[in-house]
Amino acid sequence: MPAILGQNQYGKAENRVVRIVRDGDTHHIKDLNVSIALSGAMDEVHYHGSNTGVLPTDTTKNTVYAFAKEHGIASAEQFGIHLARHFVTSQDTIHRARIRIEEYAWERIPLPGADARPDRATETGHSFVRTRQETRLAQITYDGDRWQIVSGLTDLTVLNSTNSEFRGYVKDAYTTLKEAYDRILATDVSARWRHNWTSDEQGMPDWEQSYARTKQHLLEAFAETYSLSLQQTLYQMGSRVIDSRSEIDEIRFSLPNKHHFLVDLEPFGQKNDNEVYLAADRPYGLIEATVLRDGTEAAIPVDLTNL
Amino acid sequence: MPAILGQNQYGKAENRVVRIVRDGDTHHIKDLNVSIALSGAMDEVHYHGSNTGVLPTDTTKNTVYAFAKEHGIASAEQFGIHLARHFVTSQDTIHRARIRIEEYAWERIPLPGADARPDRATETGHSFVRTRQETRLAQITYDGDRWQIVSGLTDLTVLNSTNSEFRGYVKDAYTTLKEAYDRILATDVSARWRHNWTSDEQGMPDWEQSYARTKQHLLEAFAETYSLSLQQTLYQMGSRVIDSRSEIDEIRFSLPNKHHFLVDLEPFGQKNDNEVYLAADRPYGLIEATVLRDGTEAAIPVDLTNL
Amino acid sequence: MPAILGQNQYGKAENRVVRIVRDGDTHHIKDLNVSIALSGAMDEVHYHGSNTGVLPTDTTKNTVYAFAKEHGIASAEQFGIHLARHFVTSQDTIHRARIRIEEYAWERIPLPGADARPDRATETGHSFVRTRQETRLAQITYDGDRWQIVSGLTDLTVLNSTNSEFRGYVKDAYTTLKEAYDRILATDVSARWRHNWTSDEQGMPDWEQSYARTKQHLLEAFAETYSLSLQQTLYQMGSRVIDSRSEIDEIRFSLPNKHHFLVDLEPFGQKNDNEVYLAADRPYGLIEATVLRDGTEAAIPVDLTNL
Amino acid sequence: MPAILGQNQYGKAENRVVRIVRDGDTHHIKDLNVSIALSGAMDEVHYHGSNTGVLPTDTTKNTVYAFAKEHGIASAEQFGIHLARHFVTSQDTIHRARIRIEEYAWERIPLPGADARPDRATETGHSFVRTRQETRLAQITYDGDRWQIVSGLTDLTVLNSTNSEFRGYVKDAYTTLKEAYDRILATDVSARWRHNWTSDEQGMPDWEQSYARTKQHLLEAFAETYSLSLQQTLYQMGSRVIDSRSEIDEIRFSLPNKHHFLVDLEPFGQKNDNEVYLAADRPYGLIEATVLRDGTEAAIPVDLTNL
Repeated sequence: MPAILGQNQYGKAENRVVRIVRDGDTHHIKDLNVSIALSGAMDEVHYHGSNTGVLPTDTTKNTVYAFAKEHGIASAEQFGIHLARHFVTSQDTIHRARIRIEEYAWERIPLPGADARPDRATETGHSFVRTRQETRLAQITYDGDRWQIVSGLTDLTVLNSTNSEFRGYVKDAYTTLKEAYDRILATDVSARWRHNWTSDEQGMPDWEQSYARTKQHLLEAFAETYSLSLQQTLYQMGSRVIDSRSEIDEIRFSLPNKHHFLVDLEPFGQKNDNEVYLAADRPYGLIEATVLRDGTEAAIPVDLTNL
Repeated sequence: MPAILGQNQYGKAENRVVRIVRDGDTHHIKDLNVSIALSGAMDEVHYHGSNTGVLPTDTTKNTVYAFAKEHGIASAEQFGIHLARHFVTSQDTIHRARIRIEEYAWERIPLPGADARPDRATETGHSFVRTRQETRLAQITYDGDRWQIVSGLTDLTVLNSTNSEFRGYVKDAYTTLKEAYDRILATDVSARWRHNWTSDEQGMPDWEQSYARTKQHLLEAFAETYSLSLQQTLYQMGSRVIDSRSEIDEIRFSLPNKHHFLVDLEPFGQKNDNEVYLAADRPYGLIEATVLRDGTEAAIPVDLTNL
Repeated sequence: MPAILGQNQYGKAENRVVRIVRDGDTHHIKDLNVSIALSGAMDEVHYHGSNTGVLPTDTTKNTVYAFAKEHGIASAEQFGIHLARHFVTSQDTIHRARIRIEEYAWERIPLPGADARPDRATETGHSFVRTRQETRLAQITYDGDRWQIVSGLTDLTVLNSTNSEFRGYVKDAYTTLKEAYDRILATDVSARWRHNWTSDEQGMPDWEQSYARTKQHLLEAFAETYSLSLQQTLYQMGSRVIDSRSEIDEIRFSLPNKHHFLVDLEPFGQKNDNEVYLAADRPYGLIEATVLRDGTEAAIPVDLTNL
Repeated sequence: MPAILGQNQYGKAENRVVRIVRDGDTHHIKDLNVSIALSGAMDEVHYHGSNTGVLPTDTTKNTVYAFAKEHGIASAEQFGIHLARHFVTSQDTIHRARIRIEEYAWERIPLPGADARPDRATETGHSFVRTRQETRLAQITYDGDRWQIVSGLTDLTVLNSTNSEFRGYVKDAYTTLKEAYDRILATDVSARWRHNWTSDEQGMPDWEQSYARTKQHLLEAFAETYSLSLQQTLYQMGSRVIDSRSEIDEIRFSLPNKHHFLVDLEPFGQKNDNEVYLAADRPYGLIEATVLRDGTEAAIPVDLTNL
């Protein structure tokens, strides 16, 4: 038999679960998209179609909904930990579980509007509007012994309208780019960060607070960096997180350089003094790097953020 | 010649223009996607390929960027008015211009984060993050005589976790739905509203304020309505706008009923007391209607919001 | 009551139905996405939330699946006719039904491959691969008296690598475009055509054959036209259909001009003799027009193809 | 300095290049989307914003277009080899280049249509229609010494309307799935395969033929397998390729199980004898695995196909 089975995994992807908690008239909402991937002793099903070791993907879906009831959803990370532990410990044939979660944020609809009506409540307890500023991510991996918890976000779009240059670069026979002394710098931040919590023996981070603070550090570092290149901005964002969050040892970025080209208005007798830009789609620069706590080793899959 | 030319229009679509205004260290940003559609005496080019009456679409693109410099972008509506007037009045062959605009909102990145550092500024003047809660829309149409200004928004996602029922409906041979006494009601609001400003003789509304207030009325009406059907909620949202905004005579909605199905947890020995829901994608209910000021006539194209 | 209800419609959108017909070992597949929109006496539900005249959208979904069994799916148009007739004739409160259908095409997987193995069958009867060249469309509207059947397609991408010019156009102060004597012409064809079958008294067209022939006429007319402008090509495509298909009275196009820009290779000491192009995304020219049989009136909603 | 730089790469992504070759009146087209990722001695730019070792991403874009002229595009793989070799050998600071390419297929528009007109040519030499059945992929990696060439495809959608079961699986407390004895099996094939060509010393495969044959083997193996599970079908597809193509040592799949649920028509008094199905979107099973030539080691990044 010349063809053999290599790494494999299976499960139900994109289970959309919404959990409402009713605290009197004040409701709370968690809105997740949960994907399950299980690995283990799966030779038989690949080679011979025998399903005797296969927990159906449909069952993994049911488990997501049952666990939303049973354990609640304190955070995406905590919910994933419950799921991963269950799959690995309850089935002999499953040796590793990886749970990927997207989380969508909601905020309460404010009442009344801009024109204050002081006799009314300032919000209802059960009415929400999606914020959509970014999508929160979590990936929980468990092999029965060690945990890997990677949190992250994607599609957080930021822009500096000044304090960005790009010059002093290599010129070769194919270089036509002019140096820029004051350009727009814009990117869709996609980042994944790895926590150093790996064992049930350790105290667990506060996942909700950790996420909120990390996002804020990313925004602040982007805003405060006078940028000589997007690579430099990336490193500043990463080192700000490593310096400020002791629970995080590694962060990997994928930052598209969303080009805003200064439009040449001279044919129309106008001077464009950094006022009018064309926002381009494709192609785009793509800058990807990992920033690590010194003394630790990289463990986030390099391809996790670059497809 | 058995085949004749009917209604036609042409122009450059999706011109992405970003305008930065520098007020000292405080910058302001407008971020638009502008589509031009021109109509007029265009028989020759269709029948014979003669371009003598055709202003190139490339020129309409250039005009967008030149006008962003020349006139600035006070609002999407005002910018579209400048463009439409120009095309209709500067070219004999162009009798009607329709400008469609999407606007993307940005807010300033706050400094510092959750952990206050009182010695620092609370925000930079040049750093922005996209809000992405909804996309703002404007459509400006001009025929050399009358204006039609339709403003709107899309992808404003709202959810009530209670105060929604659906019962007392028609049952036929194909009906299996069970009546609901307490369900989640969620929708992506897509709305277009028509202003009664139609002539240069009239005073123009404050487009920015009008948009902000209308959006807030939509949110409040959604939150405050105890819903017996999504149709009823739609009408409440529409009539709130018509009652509150004298500059608006008509509003048309397209509201998908984003179903959140209560998951049956009984097979797992659990009771689901309105806690755990499956958020479904397709199919979805789709509720579409126009709400009008009494005594006025509908003029927003019915198909504008239902493709 | 200052706000009144205008045009409205509702129903279940995007019902994905697949029908397999087993003719011995040879199976046949129809794969549709069906959207229902019903109108009629719906004041009560909008004004007061009374559902006594409302057939639930869930029931309209069930009807799609039940009719796929009961009537089969001879064609998207015929299936829509069954559905529309049912809703209008079975419910007093429903006065008009509009059924929109997308159809996805499949072809049989060929056996064996490039290297012929003559001892084997040339295809299985039950194995299919999606073709995806275009998406077929149908819209069936019925008011209890007259039918309107609009067929169409979208995302049919075509390209001529020569036989296209663009010159002799208007130049104004914002024109910088250079005239083109040999350019690439490419577009994603989106077209809707209206049949003159409107009454049960008339004999019905063969919908499957009509679609196949109309698509072929569109392709041939695109290929055979020496183009002086995309408008001219559009008219040639439309008149070819009107001239060739007696069952069709009107066709409306939305044709993006998918720009392929000749890349300037002179900075690298190379001459670009119509060899290397940059395929651009945005902005794009957008050419839209209706072509009509002389003596008939346009009836396809103008906005049907331009959102 | 507690935060250090880990793995990093940069370059211009999604360069859309179209190459026309004119062989008299018969034209040939290649349509690619090319993404460049370069790695090497990039500490300075990340830590200090010094660009002295940075070849601009804009230059990498220019190189794509210049090389399309200079070397032509015999195949995506060959074109990527030219690019990767250039970046690694021409710049001291660049130690590794990874070129990712998507290729879009076109076929000639046939003339005349279904109704033959024997006096006319059967096709023009310059008119094309996109096939869109799948997207072809190539990834070329070079470190100055060894090559890794991964070819692949994505979005090849296949369906068997019979010859698929799923039964005999594990049942736990969360299992509700009923066993299936005759179900639809459908998937969007996403596959990446690694060639054993790694050195300029070896003779190079015929990349175009290798791709065509591999795709055909995948289709045939899918069609001919009586499936007891999607995992078994996956292995059959992979081993068919390994057995048949000596130039390929490894293939990795990501196969969503596109569920087609048999609709319960009993409430309507109908029997559904494997005729009417609901095609579901989310959630979906996701089956991923590598199949290897015995004696070789896996080298395709595991995450390459599962994001």
